[in-house]
Amino acid sequence: MSHGFRLYAGSSHQALASQVARELSTDLGSVHLSQFKSGELYAHFPESVRGVDVYLLQSFSPPINDHFVELLLMIDALKRSSAGRINVIIPYFGYGRQEKQGEAREPISAKVLADVLTTVGAHRVITIDLHAAAIQGFFNIPVDHLSALSVLAQEVRAMNLVDAVVVSPDAGRAKTAEKFAAMLDLPMAIMHKGRPQHNEAVITHLIGDVKGKTPIVIEDIIDTGGTIVQVVENLLAMGARPNAVLCATHGVFSSPAETRLKHTGIAQVLVTDSLPLRSEMKGLPIKVLPIAPLLAEVIGRVHNNQALSSM
Amino acid sequence: MSHGFRLYAGSSHQALASQVARELSTDLGSVHLSQFKSGELYAHFPESVRGVDVYLLQSFSPPINDHFVELLLMIDALKRSSAGRINVIIPYFGYGRQEKQGEAREPISAKVLADVLTTVGAHRVITIDLHAAAIQGFFNIPVDHLSALSVLAQEVRAMNLVDAVVVSPDAGRAKTAEKFAAMLDLPMAIMHKGRPQHNEAVITHLIGDVKGKTPIVIEDIIDTGGTIVQVVENLLAMGARPNAVLCATHGVFSSPAETRLKHTGIAQVLVTDSLPLRSEMKGLPIKVLPIAPLLAEVIGRVHNNQALSSM
Amino acid sequence: MSHGFRLYAGSSHQALASQVARELSTDLGSVHLSQFKSGELYAHFPESVRGVDVYLLQSFSPPINDHFVELLLMIDALKRSSAGRINVIIPYFGYGRQEKQGEAREPISAKVLADVLTTVGAHRVITIDLHAAAIQGFFNIPVDHLSALSVLAQEVRAMNLVDAVVVSPDAGRAKTAEKFAAMLDLPMAIMHKGRPQHNEAVITHLIGDVKGKTPIVIEDIIDTGGTIVQVVENLLAMGARPNAVLCATHGVFSSPAETRLKHTGIAQVLVTDSLPLRSEMKGLPIKVLPIAPLLAEVIGRVHNNQALSSM
Amino acid sequence: MSHGFRLYAGSSHQALASQVARELSTDLGSVHLSQFKSGELYAHFPESVRGVDVYLLQSFSPPINDHFVELLLMIDALKRSSAGRINVIIPYFGYGRQEKQGEAREPISAKVLADVLTTVGAHRVITIDLHAAAIQGFFNIPVDHLSALSVLAQEVRAMNLVDAVVVSPDAGRAKTAEKFAAMLDLPMAIMHKGRPQHNEAVITHLIGDVKGKTPIVIEDIIDTGGTIVQVVENLLAMGARPNAVLCATHGVFSSPAETRLKHTGIAQVLVTDSLPLRSEMKGLPIKVLPIAPLLAEVIGRVHNNQALSSM
Amino acid sequence: MSHGFRLYAGSSHQALASQVARELSTDLGSVHLSQFKSGELYAHFPESVRGVDVYLLQSFSPPINDHFVELLLMIDALKRSSAGRINVIIPYFGYGRQEKQGEAREPISAKVLADVLTTVGAHRVITIDLHAAAIQGFFNIPVDHLSALSVLAQEVRAMNLVDAVVVSPDAGRAKTAEKFAAMLDLPMAIMHKGRPQHNEAVITHLIGDVKGKTPIVIEDIIDTGGTIVQVVENLLAMGARPNAVLCATHGVFSSPAETRLKHTGIAQVLVTDSLPLRSEMKGLPIKVLPIAPLLAEVIGRVHNNQALSSM
Amino acid sequence: MSHGFRLYAGSSHQALASQVARELSTDLGSVHLSQFKSGELYAHFPESVRGVDVYLLQSFSPPINDHFVELLLMIDALKRSSAGRINVIIPYFGYGRQEKQGEAREPISAKVLADVLTTVGAHRVITIDLHAAAIQGFFNIPVDHLSALSVLAQEVRAMNLVDAVVVSPDAGRAKTAEKFAAMLDLPMAIMHKGRPQHNEAVITHLIGDVKGKTPIVIEDIIDTGGTIVQVVENLLAMGARPNAVLCATHGVFSSPAETRLKHTGIAQVLVTDSLPLRSEMKGLPIKVLPIAPLLAEVIGRVHNNQALSSM
Repeated sequence: MSHGFRLYAGSSHQALASQVARELSTDLGSVHLSQFKSGELYAHFPESVRGVDVYLLQSFSPPINDHFVELLLMIDALKRSSAGRINVIIPYFGYGRQEKQGEAREPISAKVLADVLTTVGAHRVITIDLHAAAIQGFFNIPVDHLSALSVLAQEVRAMNLVDAVVVSPDAGRAKTAEKFAAMLDLPMAIMHKGRPQHNEAVITHLIGDVKGKTPIVIEDIIDTGGTIVQVVENLLAMGARPNAVLCATHGVFSSPAETRLKHTGIAQVLVTDSLPLRSEMKGLPIKVLPIAPLLAEVIGRVHNNQALSSM
Repeated sequence: MSHGFRLYAGSSHQALASQVARELSTDLGSVHLSQFKSGELYAHFPESVRGVDVYLLQSFSPPINDHFVELLLMIDALKRSSAGRINVIIPYFGYGRQEKQGEAREPISAKVLADVLTTVGAHRVITIDLHAAAIQGFFNIPVDHLSALSVLAQEVRAMNLVDAVVVSPDAGRAKTAEKFAAMLDLPMAIMHKGRPQHNEAVITHLIGDVKGKTPIVIEDIIDTGGTIVQVVENLLAMGARPNAVLCATHGVFSSPAETRLKHTGIAQVLVTDSLPLRSEMKGLPIKVLPIAPLLAEVIGRVHNNQALSSM
Repeated sequence: MSHGFRLYAGSSHQALASQVARELSTDLGSVHLSQFKSGELYAHFPESVRGVDVYLLQSFSPPINDHFVELLLMIDALKRSSAGRINVIIPYFGYGRQEKQGEAREPISAKVLADVLTTVGAHRVITIDLHAAAIQGFFNIPVDHLSALSVLAQEVRAMNLVDAVVVSPDAGRAKTAEKFAAMLDLPMAIMHKGRPQHNEAVITHLIGDVKGKTPIVIEDIIDTGGTIVQVVENLLAMGARPNAVLCATHGVFSSPAETRLKHTGIAQVLVTDSLPLRSEMKGLPIKVLPIAPLLAEVIGRVHNNQALSSM
Repeated sequence: MSHGFRLYAGSSHQALASQVARELSTDLGSVHLSQFKSGELYAHFPESVRGVDVYLLQSFSPPINDHFVELLLMIDALKRSSAGRINVIIPYFGYGRQEKQGEAREPISAKVLADVLTTVGAHRVITIDLHAAAIQGFFNIPVDHLSALSVLAQEVRAMNLVDAVVVSPDAGRAKTAEKFAAMLDLPMAIMHKGRPQHNEAVITHLIGDVKGKTPIVIEDIIDTGGTIVQVVENLLAMGARPNAVLCATHGVFSSPAETRLKHTGIAQVLVTDSLPLRSEMKGLPIKVLPIAPLLAEVIGRVHNNQALSSM
Repeated sequence: MSHGFRLYAGSSHQALASQVARELSTDLGSVHLSQFKSGELYAHFPESVRGVDVYLLQSFSPPINDHFVELLLMIDALKRSSAGRINVIIPYFGYGRQEKQGEAREPISAKVLADVLTTVGAHRVITIDLHAAAIQGFFNIPVDHLSALSVLAQEVRAMNLVDAVVVSPDAGRAKTAEKFAAMLDLPMAIMHKGRPQHNEAVITHLIGDVKGKTPIVIEDIIDTGGTIVQVVENLLAMGARPNAVLCATHGVFSSPAETRLKHTGIAQVLVTDSLPLRSEMKGLPIKVLPIAPLLAEVIGRVHNNQALSSM
Repeated sequence: MSHGFRLYAGSSHQALASQVARELSTDLGSVHLSQFKSGELYAHFPESVRGVDVYLLQSFSPPINDHFVELLLMIDALKRSSAGRINVIIPYFGYGRQEKQGEAREPISAKVLADVLTTVGAHRVITIDLHAAAIQGFFNIPVDHLSALSVLAQEVRAMNLVDAVVVSPDAGRAKTAEKFAAMLDLPMAIMHKGRPQHNEAVITHLIGDVKGKTPIVIEDIIDTGGTIVQVVENLLAMGARPNAVLCATHGVFSSPAETRLKHTGIAQVLVTDSLPLRSEMKGLPIKVLPIAPLLAEVIGRVHNNQALSSM
């Protein structure tokens, strides 16, 4: 391989890895991955990796724990086999929503992942739109934290929507919505929860104006769709037009997302291919934006010691 | 000392430490702290600490780097002298605003502090209202992360404000504002930045309704007051009543806060004594809420292995 | 809880944990375990664990990677919540068969598990019949390595077999077979692989005398049954009686074990309940020996600082 | 030195290091090693090592603890002097027989060595025929684990023995004997210990057929010769021919090996020069096979990032 | 930058850094350093540092704790931004006088600094005349420990003093004085403290002959000047000539050094510019010897993997 | 054992350990120590140590490397067997004279020992008169650093010497001599090396007055006696009385100390029993002062969490 590095794919998202390889005009490195009947995973690299800088692409898509452990075994095999720098590309960094103790006596799962990856031997993490930017600080190895927000914004701009408004689905996403609204030169609205006037039941409020507007809901992750469909219904109730555009970097789409997102208020869903699209989602109005060009560009720059900040 | 533990004060906030000691019906442990003419700090514990569980109270008030290094030296002295558990109480955890790489090639300063405290020998951190909750995950030692939000809310309720609205000064604080509004059963508004219609200049937007209302602005930190006074002016421009109540856990009040906060639109500033109040601030309408009862309660529970979650 | 410690069960083997609790005349501690639709796991301890020595029971049964990650999250939650000593009971330590690099560029998976458990915060591991005893040395925390060999031997003795022979299914198990034969005062035979007289095909040899004897095959793990059924067939071919007794500490019984072990040459299978028995195995001549008494005894001794060596 | 690396010899086996250097057409690097009258060791490198990848050859021959500590001091001196990669070649890795807790409350000495070497600063270990392959997993740095089994097998084949049988001296070596028998296309027999029919005394059993055959006993280490001579006597008693060939990678030959191995049943002893041959052994029928070519080949490949697996 | 490395200056001593850059015919790398009103520091590198070996020059001059923390933040920013080797140049390593526990329950501050620098990510330290040479052993990264003693000696020789004597200001500096006296071919005298004949008051003794001689007092640090002026007065009392030459590598000159060193017994003070000279000292007979040539030479050699020992 | 702790002796100095046990009215704990013919050491604790705080006494007397490795194995066995706190008593900490890089490319051996002891699992070190006090800072575990200087001083006072002078044998010991002289209310002299007037040969100088006086030479270690006998001869040449008293904490007395110290200028040698006295030294005028009372007192205080500073 003439590039001086090698790109390997875990079993989570081989299609993406192949596209990245194609962008780099190279081939995927050869690795044998298998699972025993007992569920134990196994990884074997048939070719020497001595002194070779490697890039391992593994997304934390379901079955997430298998994909996580598989990645650990790949790293260990490479470390013991005298690989050079072990760069781990995790387009979707799962467990990111458990990045603090929201309640007493729960784990900070994202920190567990960070510590474990470092212990096993990763030298660098390349990832996209962490649920919380502070997760970068869970690591003491370099984390190249990319954003797909501009990729999403570019697609939205191409839709030429009129009278649109960017909606943050909850208070915690307001910062992201602010950035997205600024990219699109659009106003912004925020859904948030509250209990007005001694009413015990949680009520969802909207602040900002959506009446008669096309709502563009921005999230980092769409998972089962429960939250976001609730947001859409609230928007409709408040007079928004029934043509919501849902944007998210990561389309996890766990069941029953395939049912929920078939909603008359939703005109379009935009995600990247940071995870493979579940086959059940095929019939829905989902547009998957490719991130392979972004990742390929980053690998090239990292390998050649060029700045990412200018991207 | 009959309590089986000992409480020591760094030089940052001896008044608070004394109050905590009083709440615990104990005396502060004796420690000699001094600074040489060269600026080098020194700490010496005149009494044996062998096997004694200690609580060191040090707030990261200015001069923050001196207070940080002083804390390191105290921990090192205790560790080498066979102290039991070294519990560090940091009411105001400075550098928390640098908790991610907002730009390329800047430090994650809060992580530096976390790693350093752990390396030197802290066994636990007790702190209040971190700028970002994820900073808890920067540590692998237990962090008892307290909140003064309910203390602030209680004081606001006692003010019996009519027709009030909770205001988040920017998009990043919306989550906190949401919690505060829920505690107070009040509606909420959010200031945020944007660039409408290809206009290059950053413009501050308000979403939510403030006209004729008393704004309650909630922050974690009031520093020089620049941001929050700008918020107040924007609120006035949008028709809010000129009697804003500014609430924050940490009143850093760096200069020129003493000037800026003398603003006709501000009726009251509420902070806790997590930092000592700068003497220049004395004439302003600032009410300082005591946190010593909270800290004393926590120390008692930690020492007796009782849950904090029920507090 | 009057015992001064608390026992928690991961989701892998709650029946065993309950039995251990019963043996200890205590209740299982309360822990909420759940799995999101995305496959992400979650653990939450509803009661305070401050200063409490805990014992977490989790077997590495399928789905092994889920059970492993769940254990990590439980440990992290306990560590951050100021638990005392975190003792991890892993009756079946999976991935133990990958304890060395049998081939170049494969992982030492058992070491990955050991390092990760230690990094996350385990203070002690209690386990049974590791695939290789040297795995104990993968840890620098205390590992109480128990054996169920005498439990198996006791059961075999109760069967009053006449003219029996202990059989090691391969050369690598000869040491275990030697111990087992010595416990039972029986002779021993060993199956091993070779290529006699330039014949390229691998041929299985038997050394030792099995003709007309009842073979007692001893293994640490029975997984899919492929190897052990091959051994039984070889034994039959060499004249052994068609009433083999298969003994193993760990009955993983991955599919198609339920089919393979329905073999006319097999009279009885003896395993412990270090893993839950797959329901598909219910109709087979399998006797499951309880290890809860052993584990309960060990917990009691560890907690009271009594020697295990006298057990 | 034109090779881009430098080879240094500890005081344990300078002859071997010189041969390796000769194979590599280079000179040994200069290092001053000395021992003070107090027994304290000292190491000094007279020439700059900045940025130079080094290979330190030290066998754990007697006095083993001196050789171990000397190696630590050499590594420390190189680390502090800004050497590049510190590769440690330990042809005979002593203390390997203490790789698990065979009894309660004994050390896992091999793990102690592994941890200490890593702590002090070794980046890689190159070693031959570890007593247990799992010792490789005691390290988290790359361990290039070589085997001299094929070197021994080649020599045995050249002896053109007729009617020979490979003998494992105990159950724990059966796996190695199996590999060796397969290399030589020979049958195999195993010595093992047992207590037939309630007899308390330990009796040694043989499984497999040795009558009238030439026994080839395979071991990793021959130390005082006690075990292996007992094996030879048992073989003779069971009718083997009195021309045993004893094969082992490591000829430690501690006293009284020089007496014990002068046995009429022993025709030949084959070992490698992984340790220097004790002078007392000179008159015995010992053939020492050179491993310098193997080590030189490995150094060359490691230095040039070529695979070892193809060797 | 054609050198393949980059030199950055912390805010402590930009003049020195500029001189070093000039000696190396290069420019200082660009770094934005600032301090918020709260005292929090900030560092930002505007240009990519990926793969670049960097040299950070920061002296621990006052305000020492700010300079220390600033250095930590610079290192963290570089580490997270994928810099190559991070070499830290600390001409004056403050806190070196607290290198042991002189009294119970005080810190070993120099060790705290060493541990913290390593934790945060320094790969090498280059420093001059540590207060105690053993501080080098506080690190496990390479420490290039330079001496300015020969620079000082060269200057003294140029003064052509007649009938001079090297004076150690206390017993702890005797070793340094011995080296300096040997360099200058001069006799030596030592001041030390004692209590002759049951007299409780501490009395300063001189051993050696100073009558009628020009005393050359050698120190590593001149701080407030208290000790050294006392030494000068004692020397005068014992008949030395009133033209003492005070030599020290590090001129900290904390107040009231500017007053104390205006002493009729002092003819000349020689220091290096390892710290910036306080402006208050400008009128005194102080000669500042440049160390930029030394540091530049060292950087060049380190970068090119050339020995420092030949310097 | 009613004390709640247990004292174990390594093989270096069992007599001292027995005396300490006697002082504590307890028995030594049982440990089996042995050495195989190959030189490999072995340690086994026959009784349970679970939860027991242990004190291991091992002096770094010759054969020092064996004693060091034996200590490591004892610590590892205890750690893996769930001992409580592992306190290591090293009366004579060998390799202390290699505590800095006196020359380029030599090790800092004392740091190697410190790091290794910590890695293996020591929780505390108790030691006497380290060669350099800064070695305490090589550790991050508590080091209780005792001094035998007052024991030596007490013995000297009892000798009622008239007209005596304390002599430092070289510049590096001047600080110790100063302390000793102060304890004894005696004047002081210092030997040091130099090259007067371009003379290349090293010449030993004396500063201070010894004519007609009884010299009391103070050292931390007397090893082969080479240096100290040279000092005695220089003292005689300078007119001192031929009745030198040599004082040192540690009497290593490596050969040929037995010959050298039979010198007419030496009246008495005072050491402690921090090492066992070599039998060859028996006929010499050596008085060995017992340190068991000191060590027993320290163990008692450490175990009961009482200050050592008041001793």
